[in-house]
Amino acid sequence: MVKYDAPHHKPNGSNSDIKIANIAIVGGTHGNEYTGIYLLKIFKERQTFSSFKSFQTTLLLSNPKAFENQSRFIDFDLNRSFLNKDLKDITLSAYEQSRSKAINNLLGPKGNAKTDLIIDLHTTTANMGVTIILVDNNDFNLKMVAHVQSQLKDISIFYISPDDSDNPYLNSIAKYGFSLEVGPISNGIVRHDILIKTYQTVIYCLEFIEAFNQGFQSDEQTVDVFEYVKQVDFPLDNNNQIAAMLHSDLQDKDFIALQKGTKIFEMFNGDTVLYEDDESLYPVFINEAAYYYKKTAFTLARKKRLTLLPRNH
Amino acid sequence: MVKYDAPHHKPNGSNSDIKIANIAIVGGTHGNEYTGIYLLKIFKERQTFSSFKSFQTTLLLSNPKAFENQSRFIDFDLNRSFLNKDLKDITLSAYEQSRSKAINNLLGPKGNAKTDLIIDLHTTTANMGVTIILVDNNDFNLKMVAHVQSQLKDISIFYISPDDSDNPYLNSIAKYGFSLEVGPISNGIVRHDILIKTYQTVIYCLEFIEAFNQGFQSDEQTVDVFEYVKQVDFPLDNNNQIAAMLHSDLQDKDFIALQKGTKIFEMFNGDTVLYEDDESLYPVFINEAAYYYKKTAFTLARKKRLTLLPRNH
Repeated sequence: MVKYDAPHHKPNGSNSDIKIANIAIVGGTHGNEYTGIYLLKIFKERQTFSSFKSFQTTLLLSNPKAFENQSRFIDFDLNRSFLNKDLKDITLSAYEQSRSKAINNLLGPKGNAKTDLIIDLHTTTANMGVTIILVDNNDFNLKMVAHVQSQLKDISIFYISPDDSDNPYLNSIAKYGFSLEVGPISNGIVRHDILIKTYQTVIYCLEFIEAFNQGFQSDEQTVDVFEYVKQVDFPLDNNNQIAAMLHSDLQDKDFIALQKGTKIFEMFNGDTVLYEDDESLYPVFINEAAYYYKKTAFTLARKKRLTLLPRNH
Repeated sequence: MVKYDAPHHKPNGSNSDIKIANIAIVGGTHGNEYTGIYLLKIFKERQTFSSFKSFQTTLLLSNPKAFENQSRFIDFDLNRSFLNKDLKDITLSAYEQSRSKAINNLLGPKGNAKTDLIIDLHTTTANMGVTIILVDNNDFNLKMVAHVQSQLKDISIFYISPDDSDNPYLNSIAKYGFSLEVGPISNGIVRHDILIKTYQTVIYCLEFIEAFNQGFQSDEQTVDVFEYVKQVDFPLDNNNQIAAMLHSDLQDKDFIALQKGTKIFEMFNGDTVLYEDDESLYPVFINEAAYYYKKTAFTLARKKRLTLLPRNH
């Protein structure tokens, strides 16, 4: 096993010392998002990765008990269980809080991981198409996703900057990689079309990595990302219950800039709620089933163009 | 309360002695199908039914604990808990098996119910549009749904004949009524467009009933229904696990006749499975999330034209 230990941010360094030797493809971090889970079975059965020579691939069903239970999680969201402080806290013993430690042992340890890159496969009920979610915007990650975007088109990149230099997502165990969100799809089913889009995105990434390991450098000089700004909750009634639904004018309009005055909610009493911000932000995760429990209706993001480091720098 | 006690099948009788005086609109029989639950809130808040004078309406959230839990059910499918023998069996004490008895007490008792007609609101992850599910094809039910279909278009009627003269569905408490399935929609969310279609179907039914109670007879002479034939399971592997996904050629093709040779499954190993029946049946509930646990991929139905009794007979 190669232990990769390069510094986290290397704005002036060369990429030539980066080698991706160990990759993990993870599915079922949320047990009711079946696409990733089925894709693991397909990758295994068809030996899809046997043609790649420059890296090893581990396939991991990360939350088998939640899959068996047909639920997102058993006790706690596994994809919020990877903060360094929580991985070290042995008193956190709920199912997913223990499972995260086992996964960190297998793929990590976070900060000095034996796995160089993780792709964690998710789905969403929102109309987000293929969305790469980056929680680390290092230059390698940006170049990889920019290249995949140039090849596959219709891929969006969503970036969530870490709180306090740490974040709780499974793929944060490794220095490189991302979560993949593909939708719209209901929880608890597999759609052929959504599975194929997910499959293609993974393959394009691995092809980039295989080429990169052999010295390939891509031509992209910039990449557009949607950076997380805030979540927007449903209007609530006096009993703190959801009192509105998303307006049809907003439904399915992920990644389309919201204009002031757009109808965003229809209240149960018939009133309409408008988008009031002067800044035209981009809605994502519109009507995501997993966020109803916390009464979140959608997330807003700001579009940003990032510059990639020049080749050979 | 009017106690309506007409004989079950009345092929030669007049309809003039039928009066629909008590109606129940039920939502949340499956706790993760939010459309009906939200619609109950909207009906209540907007007092939608205040203009109807010839009947009383009860609004019932039938499985509040499953709704709270964001799951289809707690212990047992509530919409399979209304067989006469189960309603009488006090040893069946799981949550839904008790809840069904309480609901039967409130709206029934089944066979001699104080409620004349029940509309039970459901959703599906399948692309079934608005589908009325009849479990009793008595002439009143057929005339009502034929009339609503003539007004609203794009409504399909699915008929499930009872086993042993009984059936386990909530709406079987009352002599008249149906389940309404609207989709495609993910579990655990509300979509404005799906909610509006459900709303319209309920309103058209109630308008028919209001007119019927005042002597109106409709013109429809026949109605086409899709009658349940059988369920088709996913191919399984040696460990009895699902080994294929629905082929994209079948996905979303609910109510479109299946031709021999159509691709219906793609196996994880890459093989394709074809539809082999000589009879061209109609698939419904294609890729319904709720049926994965029993490994059912879709249901097949046969199209049938039923003749309605002549007016004034």
